[in-house]
Amino acid sequence: MDSFEFYSPTRFVFGRESEKKTGDLVRRCGGTKVLLHFGGGSVKVNGIYDKVVASLTQAEVPFIPLGGVQPNPRSGLVREGIDLCRREKVDFILAVGGGSVIDSAKAIAFGTVYAGDFADYYFGKDVKAPKPVPAALPIGAVLTIAAAGSEGSANSIINLEPGNLKRGATGEALRPKFAILNPMFTYTLPPFQTACGAVDIFAHLVERYFTPTQDVMVSDELCEGLMRSVVVASVKALAEPTDFAARSDLMWAGSLAHNNVCGAGRVQDWASHGIEHELSALYDCAHGAGLAVVMPAWMDYVKDTDLARFARFAEKVFGVAPADKTLMVDEGIARYRAWIHSLGLPLTFRELGAKAEDIPALVAKLGLNGNTLGRFRPLKDDDVAKILESCAR
Amino acid sequence: MDSFEFYSPTRFVFGRESEKKTGDLVRRCGGTKVLLHFGGGSVKVNGIYDKVVASLTQAEVPFIPLGGVQPNPRSGLVREGIDLCRREKVDFILAVGGGSVIDSAKAIAFGTVYAGDFADYYFGKDVKAPKPVPAALPIGAVLTIAAAGSEGSANSIINLEPGNLKRGATGEALRPKFAILNPMFTYTLPPFQTACGAVDIFAHLVERYFTPTQDVMVSDELCEGLMRSVVVASVKALAEPTDFAARSDLMWAGSLAHNNVCGAGRVQDWASHGIEHELSALYDCAHGAGLAVVMPAWMDYVKDTDLARFARFAEKVFGVAPADKTLMVDEGIARYRAWIHSLGLPLTFRELGAKAEDIPALVAKLGLNGNTLGRFRPLKDDDVAKILESCAR
Repeated sequence: MDSFEFYSPTRFVFGRESEKKTGDLVRRCGGTKVLLHFGGGSVKVNGIYDKVVASLTQAEVPFIPLGGVQPNPRSGLVREGIDLCRREKVDFILAVGGGSVIDSAKAIAFGTVYAGDFADYYFGKDVKAPKPVPAALPIGAVLTIAAAGSEGSANSIINLEPGNLKRGATGEALRPKFAILNPMFTYTLPPFQTACGAVDIFAHLVERYFTPTQDVMVSDELCEGLMRSVVVASVKALAEPTDFAARSDLMWAGSLAHNNVCGAGRVQDWASHGIEHELSALYDCAHGAGLAVVMPAWMDYVKDTDLARFARFAEKVFGVAPADKTLMVDEGIARYRAWIHSLGLPLTFRELGAKAEDIPALVAKLGLNGNTLGRFRPLKDDDVAKILESCAR
Repeated sequence: MDSFEFYSPTRFVFGRESEKKTGDLVRRCGGTKVLLHFGGGSVKVNGIYDKVVASLTQAEVPFIPLGGVQPNPRSGLVREGIDLCRREKVDFILAVGGGSVIDSAKAIAFGTVYAGDFADYYFGKDVKAPKPVPAALPIGAVLTIAAAGSEGSANSIINLEPGNLKRGATGEALRPKFAILNPMFTYTLPPFQTACGAVDIFAHLVERYFTPTQDVMVSDELCEGLMRSVVVASVKALAEPTDFAARSDLMWAGSLAHNNVCGAGRVQDWASHGIEHELSALYDCAHGAGLAVVMPAWMDYVKDTDLARFARFAEKVFGVAPADKTLMVDEGIARYRAWIHSLGLPLTFRELGAKAEDIPALVAKLGLNGNTLGRFRPLKDDDVAKILESCAR
């Protein structure tokens, strides 16, 4: 096991009606004036917005609403939020939404207290050691989709305009103080979004599972257990959208998949996420849909690096019976694709709406500049191109 | 899934030489004068004490040593520590040891800032809703045995003298700010202590696994994965005490088994712990040894409450092949006992050094007063007596 620090001080408040605690939690974090940040308005339609407002009102916490966060959240709205928070002397950012809303809230929380341009800290992936964000306003999240895990992470990813460079920042200051997890809030999600969320959660575990570090039994067990849970629960939730147990397992798995308890003690990969970010930046596709295309293709390309690990993945996660290792590996990846397909998500460039002729531009925008991507099998530009070409066939 | 809050703000610092960060971590927590609390002196023999002192000295943090914590830590030393901390204006408590040292440190951290007697908050188990400890000095831990999980928990258990009432307190203020986890510190443990620690870790998972709450797939998977890890790693660590991977898995599993990530969303049992505390209070036996006797006997007594759950335990944790449910259940408990026996731990009153004629006194001291113990199957006085009698046969 490699050396590590594990520090996850987010207070996860889980259950039916947990949103009723929002106002009190903001108060306990010292918030006296809140930016209430949300997305395209679905939270107003399904009543979640009103429930959060009721809790803030009951706790006598004044707030200023700022909606309009798009999937793949844009820097333009972040700048608007920063101006608003400074002008109105906001001291707490409350995100009501999924990963995009929370990531946008994090950027605003940082930018409001940072004297320069917030984008200074949203480095390109070619920067080897990005500096952590030094400070931010406190952040809380009311989660509406089980997916990104941003409610318990210290990361934020923003589309920097113009040019749609999708870039991330990190830092303990970005970690939400609390996350409200009410699984019933996900009952009304469109099936496509539920599916994208499940594939994203699974991908966060895959990025931590495929590692050059040997002998970390505990982390292997945690990753495999959560991967199995996500596969089972996603199928149940799509079949019966109001299955509370399935929605609960998905939501809690989503937080645990990305607060890093599953990545303790070993090198992680993250190549697939890096490649996918270029797809969603260019095509504005859902992150989960992009991962559905990229990650199985990544597996096919890198499987020879450690056949034993891929065979274990096949057996433990998808129940492939022990047999010839190569056969097991291929069967495991096939079952992974079959699960994705059963959720109604794309597996190819064509199904995603991506184009083979964009591959050189996608690789160039990734900006490796001679560096490598990923740590299970470090990839160069031409490796990335080959993975994308396999998706375009 | 039941509603829950999960909040685990301890910073776990894991790896070889992680103790070198102790002084800096104390400083980051605002500590300027430390009580350095430890046990019977083994940390001085094996060099751990000197390494911690070196780190404190390098960070220019003055400290006052207070050794002598016994297993089943006594209130007498706690009171001595409280007096010392008040007199010397100590503002940080650093525990170097295992669960007993950390629990004693927690009691001192609380008692130093509490105007009354610290024991006021160490309620008997018959108190239905104990009040959480309101405040305490900040606490850090340098762990020397994988076992109790106190390094990441908000609980403390003390033997209250005279009478050796073993009683607990709880409260967020008792949760360590950081825990230093260097698996190499456990290389020199006597095999008996390594074994007791493994059985204690496993028991923390069992207490969370056997629950009346249905349908919590994620928590089931986490518990089962960690139980399997503990069984495998404990056997390896006893065979080869310097097996870094095995020691790492045990240590990290110990922290995760008790910071409550494995208990999220469901009612937990804790009857076996309640019963065992009376054994270790009366006989001063190791907590893990007491659990080795009590917990399998508890399983035999309560298995009919939910045969399906015990069958799952047998299959998932001990690899019992699916068959007739009753046969699976008994085989699972038999393998659990076989694992304990293979570690060299007692399974009976006689092997533990306990006496059948003490059973009425043990039950009386538990003090149920007509209430019940445990929540998987609530136990009355006579249930507890029958479980203990089965150990004494």
